[in-house]
Parts: sequence; structure tokens; C-alpha cells
Amino acid sequence: MSGNSGFDDIGAVASAVKANEQYATDIFAELRAGSLFGGGITRDAYGKGEQFAHDLVVRHGREMSLEVTHDAARNTYLTLPGRDRGLPSVIIGSHLDSVANGGNFDGAAGVIAGLIAVKSLVSMNFRPVCDVTVMGVRAEESVWFEQSYIGSRSALGQLSSQALKAPRIDTRKTLEDYIREAGGDPELIRRGQPFLKKEQVRAFLEVHIEQAPALVDAKCSIGIATGIPGNFRYPNVKVTGEYGHVGLYKKFRQDAALAAAEFALCLDRTWEEWELKERPMAFTIGRFHTDPKEDALTKVAGECTFSLDVRAYSESDILELHETVLGFAAEISLKRKVRFEFGATTRAEVALVNKDFRKGLEEIAHEFNFPFIRLGSPASHDAAAFAIAGVPMGMIFIRNENGSHNPAEAMEISDFLDATAVLTRWLHRELR
Amino acid sequence: MSGNSGFDDIGAVASAVKANEQYATDIFAELRAGSLFGGGITRDAYGKGEQFAHDLVVRHGREMSLEVTHDAARNTYLTLPGRDRGLPSVIIGSHLDSVANGGNFDGAAGVIAGLIAVKSLVSMNFRPVCDVTVMGVRAEESVWFEQSYIGSRSALGQLSSQALKAPRIDTRKTLEDYIREAGGDPELIRRGQPFLKKEQVRAFLEVHIEQAPALVDAKCSIGIATGIPGNFRYPNVKVTGEYGHVGLYKKFRQDAALAAAEFALCLDRTWEEWELKERPMAFTIGRFHTDPKEDALTKVAGECTFSLDVRAYSESDILELHETVLGFAAEISLKRKVRFEFGATTRAEVALVNKDFRKGLEEIAHEFNFPFIRLGSPASHDAAAFAIAGVPMGMIFIRNENGSHNPAEAMEISDFLDATAVLTRWLHRELR
Repeated sequence: MSGNSGFDDIGAVASAVKANEQYATDIFAELRAGSLFGGGITRDAYGKGEQFAHDLVVRHGREMSLEVTHDAARNTYLTLPGRDRGLPSVIIGSHLDSVANGGNFDGAAGVIAGLIAVKSLVSMNFRPVCDVTVMGVRAEESVWFEQSYIGSRSALGQLSSQALKAPRIDTRKTLEDYIREAGGDPELIRRGQPFLKKEQVRAFLEVHIEQAPALVDAKCSIGIATGIPGNFRYPNVKVTGEYGHVGLYKKFRQDAALAAAEFALCLDRTWEEWELKERPMAFTIGRFHTDPKEDALTKVAGECTFSLDVRAYSESDILELHETVLGFAAEISLKRKVRFEFGATTRAEVALVNKDFRKGLEEIAHEFNFPFIRLGSPASHDAAAFAIAGVPMGMIFIRNENGSHNPAEAMEISDFLDATAVLTRWLHRELR
Repeated sequence: MSGNSGFDDIGAVASAVKANEQYATDIFAELRAGSLFGGGITRDAYGKGEQFAHDLVVRHGREMSLEVTHDAARNTYLTLPGRDRGLPSVIIGSHLDSVANGGNFDGAAGVIAGLIAVKSLVSMNFRPVCDVTVMGVRAEESVWFEQSYIGSRSALGQLSSQALKAPRIDTRKTLEDYIREAGGDPELIRRGQPFLKKEQVRAFLEVHIEQAPALVDAKCSIGIATGIPGNFRYPNVKVTGEYGHVGLYKKFRQDAALAAAEFALCLDRTWEEWELKERPMAFTIGRFHTDPKEDALTKVAGECTFSLDVRAYSESDILELHETVLGFAAEISLKRKVRFEFGATTRAEVALVNKDFRKGLEEIAHEFNFPFIRLGSPASHDAAAFAIAGVPMGMIFIRNENGSHNPAEAMEISDFLDATAVLTRWLHRELR
């Protein structure tokens, strides 16, 4: 244990982390090589790509002599034992899956940051008061099963039985079948027995690349998170009108495509209005399709389906936006003689960062003299599942020029090391 | 030949046509039985469904002792020889193809009306001064090859070489391959030698179901056409933005789906404005798709494609609308940081009905005491190809409650007989 001043500690942590630069670079390269398909990265949830990443971090964990365990959802846990193993532990985690044709850093950077932090602490001969666990979370990208936080919720005993029945969007095989084939136990998850009890987790910390260029704009290597938005999602909204001839008069049309387009534009105006009032929100219509079996150049579209994700930073904002969405659909249904069916829905609660953690991380960033800003995460993260379950959490974002969920996703290793140094110092300071 | 008064002629024509009611009903039933797939009618252009219809009308033509011929595009001609075979002929025609999962009457009703008219004239022992030919036109539904008036233009020597290369949208096999397999000769079409010379066609008359419920609203069994709109079409407009994370801030988004939705809404407003000024037009975005290989619930759409058909009743209106379309695309590109690529395009000219024909058909409808209105056709028809080629044309619409291009398309046989009686009387009056 160090009796040095904070200033000396900062220097020691900086050196220890910096010494692992090549090691980190190599893991990222290994990870990329094993999950590159076509031009982009695909680590499909519970598929080959994700499994490769879990195997990779397990191997590195073993090389560092960390304890390796898995839970019923096959989340991976790599633990540096603390001095008092009965104390609640600190978890540093993020997810190891990616979207299809995505980038190498979204999710994985947080797990590797955890590994580098632990490796740096070990190299400093620092033994934390409690266990420090690096967690590789399963299936965070909800594109695969259209369910939020599958791995995190499973670990916390909070995944619904219904979610286990969800089919993966490409193969239509269910989540429970995938979990079983990965060596997990869907029955245990269904029973809601938590592998991680909230009383036994002192903190959940997540490092993640930013998914917008706000840090690029601000010329900051890192951002300290304030909160994670909640959302409601309708993966398959169906608008039904009536197919009609291309020459049909306007008054006779029941155009499902125009109705859906108008719905999208109404929400777009709402977002503009909220921005003017500095009320943060976002909505995304990622999929928009007339029916390929029926649609034609010369037919008024009788059917249209689209996906909807709406997010905001307080429960009351989310409720207000939900009312707004239903209101637009009702208005447009009347005006355009169509029917909106919203179908299945999922909800994620708003999650706020623990204030002490935020303050601590900001102090440390100041000590390092890293340029940083506070940032409300526009995206969802596993840390939110922990916050919602009652575990205090904190997050650090890493600058990324090209957005995420695409192959051009970018991260400078020096920015990654800044985030990892802040994380390492936090563990070093809080867990003496 | 009859020396009776017009009043007596009207009665004789009415009786002759009425006597064929069962015959007409039976042909429609045969036609439906042979082209019903699933719940709707599919007579695919140059495919099995269309061929069935041609074989059927040829058989009926032979039973009536009509002369049967085909041209290089395998259009079908069933001719009642006139007293002077050197005179320009009258053609009564429409198309025998349908959209996929459409109705039984769109197109075919006009060919059957021609057969019934000829059969009625023959039963009256009326021999026309010139040949009267019933023409079964190929491939009018541009959904198949995304080309207008394939059969009519081929007959008139006006199909472009480029059109012959067009792939059918479902099979990707080219039009020329289809024509060859149907027994036609794409080389002859390519050379632009007309099978029908405009000097040798005195009139082209087309009976067609209405494709909107205007006649239902007006409580009229038939409508007399005033003109057929011209159009411009872009079967595959592509909007390219950038894929991004679902949480991306508004200012960073380059959302292709929202850009396409806004484009659709802009045109919708234009249509509203034109309606207020009583300027007829229409536009249709029949297909609207984000890229199914890339799109997701949790991704801002980086690409979106849609089809566009815009139509109006004068060349200057069409030019103005084309400017409007390009203007909207330019504005939205700037505003939303996306790119519009309009891709391949087709044009169809505006076609006006011959005034004498219109006047004649209206006089006859009055004589019969049929309730009718004048109607600008919202849709395209083969008659337009003839008008554009310089052949005088006229059209009669039949009431239809449920629109066309769908299985619920409706036609009362009594309304069909009203239209056929007017047509028969016109031949009887003009071709004595």
C-alpha cells in the first residue's frame, strides 16, 4: 500500500497504465481479427462472434491469474480477489457483443479497460480492499433479440420469462435456446435468482466509447456521465391503409406510407421543440418498410411497418412522449383513414449516475489534467440495468469521431488510456 | 343495314348486347378461374397468367369466326372484316395482364367489351364499313418491367431498344427474353417497324373499369373520358445519409428515412395546394424501404429507397412538378445532410381524348338514358399510347366500388353492359 501523496499516486497510476499500452493495443487487434466479417465487426449476441470475444478475455484473465466464473446467462466474470472477500465487490463491466457490421470498440473497450486497470493495479502491487471483478456482459445490443440489457438483467435476476422466448431477429431461434447452447441455464434465469445480489455489489463502473462526436467537438479525450436515458420501444409498428391504384384521387386514398412518413415528421417537430426548450430526448425510426410482397411503383401503399425508439432522461418526460406518440397516431389515423397497431413494446427506466462516483471521477480527471466534459449518455448501457436494480454506478466515455454501430467507429489508444487511468486511479483511491 | 330511326337502333343495340349477358358473365368466370392465385388475380406480363388470358380470348375469337393474328410483341388481334378492307380500321382494345394479386376486370373488361360488341353487331347482321379489331394488349401494367405501354408501343413501332432490356421485377429476366419465349420477335420491335401504322387506324377505343370510386360517388354506371395524364417516374430513388447510433444527437444525424419521409410530405402538401387551385395531379410513393440488410431498431437509417410516380394533365404541369420534386430534394439534402440519387426515369406524355369521339359517346349515353359523367382518367391506359402516336382515341369507364390493383376490385355486369352498349352503338352508328 502506498503512503505517498495524491500527486505521487497519480504519477504511479499514469506510469502503470501507460506501461500496458502495447498490451491493450494487442488485445484490440486480436479482438478485431477474430470478429471481422466483410468490412465490419460482427459479434452476434450468443453467436460465434460474441463467444470469440468471451473466450479471448477469459484467456487474458487466466494469464493474469484472475478467478474465472460464469453465471446462468454465460456472462463472464474475471476477479482480482480483495483483502476482505466478504465485502461487497466493485464490478467494471461492459458488453462483448456488437451490432452486425459494427465497430471494434462499442462495448469491448469497457471490458478491456477493466482488464488493463486490474493489470495496472497488480503491477503496482496494489491489493484492493474488496474483490474487483471485470465483467464481460452478454447481449447488450438489443438489435439481436429486441430486448434491453439481456446479460445484465439476467445477472441481476431481472430478466422477464417473456424475454427468454424472444427470437433472434436473423435466425428466429429463441434466446433461451441460445443460452442453453452457450452452456447457460435459462431455467435459473426464469426463476429470477440473482447471480449478483445488489447488497454484494458496491459499484458498477463502465467505460464506453461515446456514440456521438460531442467529445470531438469539445476537444476532450473523455467524458464523465451524468445519466442514461430511459426509453420505450415499439419494434414493429404496423400502419394499415388500403392498396389503391396509382391514379387514385387524393380524397379516396388510405396511404399507409404517407401516414407513417407524417408520423415520423410529427415526432421530428416535437424533437425540435424540445431542443428549443433544452429538454433532451431522441427518437429513431430505424426501419421503415412498405410490404415488399405487395408494394409497387404503381400502387398506393396499403401497409407500412416501422420501428420506433424514443428516449429521455426522466420518467415524466418518457410518459409525456408516450402520450405524444399515441396522440400523433390517433390524429393521423383519422386524417388519413389508416390504422396504427403498435404491437409489442419494451421499456427501459431512466438511470442516473451516483453523484459521489461522478464527483470522484471528475476530481481524478482534474488531477490528471485530462480535458473532459460532463455528458448525459444519449445511448443505453449495461450500467443502467445496474442502477435500475439499485447498484450505484458511474460511467466514463471515450472520444470517438465516427459514431458507433458502424465499421468506421474510431478510438485513439491515448484516449482509451486516459479513461483507463481515471478508472484505475478511482479503484486505487477508493479501495485502499 | 338498318334504315330505322336512331330510336329504333338504340333499342336493337340494347337488345343485342343484353342477349350476351350470360356469355359475358361466363367469360369473366373462365378468366377468373384461370388466373386466381391465392386470394387475388395474377396475370403476370408475358408470364403464365397473361398467356392464359390471351389463349382464352383467341378461343372465343375463333368461335366467333374472327380473324386471329399476332404481332412481334405477341399482342392478340381478333378482326371482324369490314365491307372495305382497304379502309383504316377501328381497334377496340385494352390489356390482358394484371398486377400481382389484383382483380379480374382491370384491363380484361375492355377486351371482353370488344368481343361482346362485335358479337352483338354480328347478331344484328351488321357488317361494318371497315375492319373492327379487338386487341388484347400485352404488358400494360408497368409494375412488371417498370416500362409504360409495352404492348401498345411495340405495336406502334415506338418501344425503345432500352425498354427491351428491362428486367421483370420478380424474375430479373429481360423483356426481350420474355417476348422471344412467348413466340414474338424482339428484333422487329427494336427496328421500330410498326405493326399498326397510324394512317391505317381510324380510331382506338378502350373500355376500362374506373380505378377510383368517382362513378360510385356520382351514382353513374359509366364515365366518358376526357384525357389521360402524362407522368414521370423514378422507380428507385435512393437517399444516402449515414448510419448512426440510436442515441445520436439530432444535430449529428444524417437520417435517410426522415429525409425521404419529409420529401413525401412536401409533395403531399403540393398536392393539397394544387387541389385548392383545382389543378389536377397525383403522386404516389408505392415503395418505401430502409435497407433490410443494414437497418435496425437501434440505428439511425443511413439509406432509404423509394419509388415515385407523378402525373398531371398537361406537359407544362408535368414540367413544373418535375422542378418541384428536384427542388424539394435539394432543400432536404442541405437541411438533413443526405444525398438524393434519382436513378433511372421514365416519361409518359399527356394524351387527350378525340373531341368528336367524346361528343359521340356522350350523345349515345344520353340516347340510352344512362347516367354518366365526364372523367379525366387518373390512371394511364393503352389508349394514351395510341393518342401519343397520333391515333384518335376515346375511352369509356365502368363504375367500380373498390379501386383496382387489389382483389376486391368490383364491377356489376349491368354497368359493364351499359359501357358495352354505348361502344356497340358507336360502332353501329359510325361504321354503317
